Amino acid sequence: MTASKPRVAIIMGSRSDWPVMKKAAEALDGLGVTYEARVVSAHRTPERMVEFAKSAKAEGFQVIIAGAGGAAHLPGMTASLTPLPVLGVPVPVRDGLKGLDSLLSIVQMPGGVPVGTLAVGEAGAKNAGLLAAQILALSDPELATRVEALRQGQTDGVPDSVED
Amino acid sequence: MTASKPRVAIIMGSRSDWPVMKKAAEALDGLGVTYEARVVSAHRTPERMVEFAKSAKAEGFQVIIAGAGGAAHLPGMTASLTPLPVLGVPVPVRDGLKGLDSLLSIVQMPGGVPVGTLAVGEAGAKNAGLLAAQILALSDPELATRVEALRQGQTDGVPDSVED
Amino acid sequence: MTASKPRVAIIMGSRSDWPVMKKAAEALDGLGVTYEARVVSAHRTPERMVEFAKSAKAEGFQVIIAGAGGAAHLPGMTASLTPLPVLGVPVPVRDGLKGLDSLLSIVQMPGGVPVGTLAVGEAGAKNAGLLAAQILALSDPELATRVEALRQGQTDGVPDSVED
Amino acid sequence: MTASKPRVAIIMGSRSDWPVMKKAAEALDGLGVTYEARVVSAHRTPERMVEFAKSAKAEGFQVIIAGAGGAAHLPGMTASLTPLPVLGVPVPVRDGLKGLDSLLSIVQMPGGVPVGTLAVGEAGAKNAGLLAAQILALSDPELATRVEALRQGQTDGVPDSVED
Amino acid sequence: MTASKPRVAIIMGSRSDWPVMKKAAEALDGLGVTYEARVVSAHRTPERMVEFAKSAKAEGFQVIIAGAGGAAHLPGMTASLTPLPVLGVPVPVRDGLKGLDSLLSIVQMPGGVPVGTLAVGEAGAKNAGLLAAQILALSDPELATRVEALRQGQTDGVPDSVED
Amino acid sequence: MTASKPRVAIIMGSRSDWPVMKKAAEALDGLGVTYEARVVSAHRTPERMVEFAKSAKAEGFQVIIAGAGGAAHLPGMTASLTPLPVLGVPVPVRDGLKGLDSLLSIVQMPGGVPVGTLAVGEAGAKNAGLLAAQILALSDPELATRVEALRQGQTDGVPDSVED
Amino acid sequence: MTASKPRVAIIMGSRSDWPVMKKAAEALDGLGVTYEARVVSAHRTPERMVEFAKSAKAEGFQVIIAGAGGAAHLPGMTASLTPLPVLGVPVPVRDGLKGLDSLLSIVQMPGGVPVGTLAVGEAGAKNAGLLAAQILALSDPELATRVEALRQGQTDGVPDSVED
Amino acid sequence: MTASKPRVAIIMGSRSDWPVMKKAAEALDGLGVTYEARVVSAHRTPERMVEFAKSAKAEGFQVIIAGAGGAAHLPGMTASLTPLPVLGVPVPVRDGLKGLDSLLSIVQMPGGVPVGTLAVGEAGAKNAGLLAAQILALSDPELATRVEALRQGQTDGVPDSVED
Repeated sequence: MTASKPRVAIIMGSRSDWPVMKKAAEALDGLGVTYEARVVSAHRTPERMVEFAKSAKAEGFQVIIAGAGGAAHLPGMTASLTPLPVLGVPVPVRDGLKGLDSLLSIVQMPGGVPVGTLAVGEAGAKNAGLLAAQILALSDPELATRVEALRQGQTDGVPDSVED
Repeated sequence: MTASKPRVAIIMGSRSDWPVMKKAAEALDGLGVTYEARVVSAHRTPERMVEFAKSAKAEGFQVIIAGAGGAAHLPGMTASLTPLPVLGVPVPVRDGLKGLDSLLSIVQMPGGVPVGTLAVGEAGAKNAGLLAAQILALSDPELATRVEALRQGQTDGVPDSVED
Repeated sequence: MTASKPRVAIIMGSRSDWPVMKKAAEALDGLGVTYEARVVSAHRTPERMVEFAKSAKAEGFQVIIAGAGGAAHLPGMTASLTPLPVLGVPVPVRDGLKGLDSLLSIVQMPGGVPVGTLAVGEAGAKNAGLLAAQILALSDPELATRVEALRQGQTDGVPDSVED
Repeated sequence: MTASKPRVAIIMGSRSDWPVMKKAAEALDGLGVTYEARVVSAHRTPERMVEFAKSAKAEGFQVIIAGAGGAAHLPGMTASLTPLPVLGVPVPVRDGLKGLDSLLSIVQMPGGVPVGTLAVGEAGAKNAGLLAAQILALSDPELATRVEALRQGQTDGVPDSVED
Repeated sequence: MTASKPRVAIIMGSRSDWPVMKKAAEALDGLGVTYEARVVSAHRTPERMVEFAKSAKAEGFQVIIAGAGGAAHLPGMTASLTPLPVLGVPVPVRDGLKGLDSLLSIVQMPGGVPVGTLAVGEAGAKNAGLLAAQILALSDPELATRVEALRQGQTDGVPDSVED
Repeated sequence: MTASKPRVAIIMGSRSDWPVMKKAAEALDGLGVTYEARVVSAHRTPERMVEFAKSAKAEGFQVIIAGAGGAAHLPGMTASLTPLPVLGVPVPVRDGLKGLDSLLSIVQMPGGVPVGTLAVGEAGAKNAGLLAAQILALSDPELATRVEALRQGQTDGVPDSVED
Repeated sequence: MTASKPRVAIIMGSRSDWPVMKKAAEALDGLGVTYEARVVSAHRTPERMVEFAKSAKAEGFQVIIAGAGGAAHLPGMTASLTPLPVLGVPVPVRDGLKGLDSLLSIVQMPGGVPVGTLAVGEAGAKNAGLLAAQILALSDPELATRVEALRQGQTDGVPDSVED
Repeated sequence: MTASKPRVAIIMGSRSDWPVMKKAAEALDGLGVTYEARVVSAHRTPERMVEFAKSAKAEGFQVIIAGAGGAAHLPGMTASLTPLPVLGVPVPVRDGLKGLDSLLSIVQMPGGVPVGTLAVGEAGAKNAGLLAAQILALSDPELATRVEALRQGQTDGVPDSVED
């Protein structure tokens, strides 16, 4: 969580999603984007979810990252209650079907209520953070510079040889 | 829809689900169980859904049948907002993945918020109506008699020969 | 297993299903719903299953929870032999296909014989217990009060912060 | 259906399975193996199924071919009630998942109760008839000769050229 | 295609994707967001793709919507070459696997290069247009007003009754 | 391997399949059915396979059990070269797709060449042994008696209680 | 089929595969590569297959393209019997599982016997023809020139605009 | 990596793919085929990939083996930029879907740009090396001799007995 006013909300259905979802937080930290991370369960705290989603824009959030597993309803339900862009991260869960259930529950939204869905698991969480930053960078030239530097560093950091 | 006070609510995300979901209505009609069918979209009318689900018990409903397709959130979200039993019907939709997406989105609910899920499509809708009746029959001996008669008729109606 | 007359039967195909299925028992225990748990194998003891299912209503059971893995026939076969509501729990098994086989074998019942199916594994077993309680609560106001209290506690127990 | 005493029973859950299952009958006809085809529904007529399966050996049947769709329980339940070899045919059904549900429901039997499973649909039904004949041919040299002739004819009948 | 300077690029691998992808265009048209639609094939015109993606930001585009089918590489490759947000639409194709191949090829991007993925087919294309507008609305209050009006209209337009 | 003349051949593509396939051997041992187990690789020793399959009947084998993993061609190819009944066992392999690839490669045979397919893994191997015995028992009354005793013992051995 | 000595063999399990497989022939025709197309069924004519595969190199073939559906064994079995490169094309068949069964049966070959697998259906057949040409072009500079011209034409032929 | 001029390029998206992809290198080493292994990421170093692919033929490479995981774009994108034959290896990755995502992303290429795809994981990597050698052997009789010796040794090395 960051001291200054958060621009991105990272929400997740359960504390057990945090080890995956903190990759989104780390990505935002790395780019100097403020965020707030909260547990908001679509199924156990539906009204907290409604309240959060309806007030998110007024609270000053600009992008919402939502992670959930199994029958993952948090991203889509949040998207139905806010005009802000919502990014969804399928979290693989124990006794789940390797995350395929989470993925389909998040991505197959009906026309009218989009969720920009990322990959299953940690790669998806990291990418949700990066995509949020890319979105914010559209109107934040300094952030755009940092995003491009990160991408350049990422490119430069790929070794040519397969072993040390 | 039935004239007397409805005991079962049949809700669905879109009018386009009705050709499938009316099989639930027909099953209830056949057993003399009153019901009301409404369009309630988790994604396009989330607040109508919240209001409906929170007041369903007070309105006198005893069982809720919810059908939806794709990233099917209506059954699970309704279940999160009511103590009534919720039965879910996966509706196969155009450009959906043969209903596998709907099925996983409905059935893979986290511990704490159950949805009793039926088969994909018309068979599942019919069975949701029958299961609702079986549930209500636990405290309605006359309905129990009708359910058992239906089951018996179903058994008697199976021909022995494979052709006329 | 509970001393007083059991209202719910928890059946499963094998003792090896018990570590999963006991989550149903714990859920019922937590709500003060009496139950009895038995091993009834559709495949190894088909006649015991028939006898059990045909007499379950007369024995005083009101809801049947059936768990099975692989080609999971116990829930559907039991449902074909009783007018009581049957809830099915797909149990993931070794050399099974992550529970997808169990899920499809339980949920894809033909029109006429419903099984209310829950999620694969422990979450599904817990939810079968809760759904059975919600069904019984329709005619048991004290149980209804306990169910609603549990749901409220579940909501209250969701922390806001992602870490301690 | 054949006039002389049937050696193979072809059973199926519904008359609607007959267009697929008659390929088994045709295969047996082609090899001069007597059979009887009946509708026996695991779910709608479970007791007819039990009675059939338990008496099948005494009735003189030697192999049972069972076809079913969706949550296809007929082959496995029949197998649990007879020491005769049971061959299962997954029938693809409307609103089913292309037969994958039927296939997994039939093939993933637990240790102790085998079902020899064939391909989804007509090819599987035809092959169930052929496999039944191959089994019976083990103790019927004349049938063995016909089976080998059929196989040879099948081989001879494959054209070399891709077009007429 | 719109007369004024386009803010969104809609690219697709083939003209045959246009019947699906034009739903994105229609969504943008409905919200008064300028766009340009082009055929850019990752596989048949890889260098056109590289050139397009590298210059997209300088050309003034702010969001890229990329649709593709089968082994759908266009969204991810474009994302690898631009700091702009890229939204991906899986297009179901003939002889494809119902779009599951397209979906997995687009969404399962490695950490570092995000693609915000929408549903398979027309619903996904429409939603890509809406999500692009929601992103642009973050810094365009008039567009934000139109987005919220559209969402409100969408909510108001859901009928209560299941039939006319 | 048994001293007396073997009636069943158990073949497999690799020694690494033996830990799974020996369950078939154990099932046959338990019923006093003679067998021989050999490594015959469809892909690495195709001519050994052809020779084996073509001479299997003349060698005195009556049933062939074939296990293989991944693109599992051994059961089907063997079946194409012998009139004996062939039973197939999908073996899950490292880097395979949980055995789904093996299962589909074995079961989806074209019309004309049947393979009676069992479940993925050890349960399937055990059942292949049992099904072979059930087939042989059709003309071996003593074996039939042992099969029925095994089935009865299997039924009797199912405990009623879920814990010791 | 071409008059001069064929360099590529196109084989398929059945005449019904020809409408798909002729796309390979057309691709070779377009590049002036000689080929011969034959029906060779792994399952119905296993010995013809063995003979073909073992003699293919001596007959002067340099690349083999093999198409098959369902439990598609032709490509892998051919590969096990020749040192020539074998390219496999999964053909979707009626009652098959959309070609997923064919794909897995062809691609999941064990270490030691490779099949270079192409996409399901017509695109895959066309690409098998192109890949065969690319392979032959390694030692045929004129063919290499034609391949590169085809690729260039393919690139040039992609329109920029989405509509005429 | 080999001292003499490399004929095969082994490229992969990340160093973490090397433990799988080195099986290709070992296969080439075993046959005395020179190669070079490099990390070339489609997503993190797209321009390095373009440059590599466009110059690969001029650099003297004859076959390219490309391995990648998840949304695996490296094989197909490389194939779009070179007339050389490209062989693809799906690498299973953490949080990936058991390699099914990688497989579909590589194999389902559109008509016009082939990738010869091998099995998921180590078996596929080994086979990519072998298939590359089989391709090169078409115009290298000494290599052809070594390939055939390897195949013969492979055949000879299969034990007959299932245990030592």
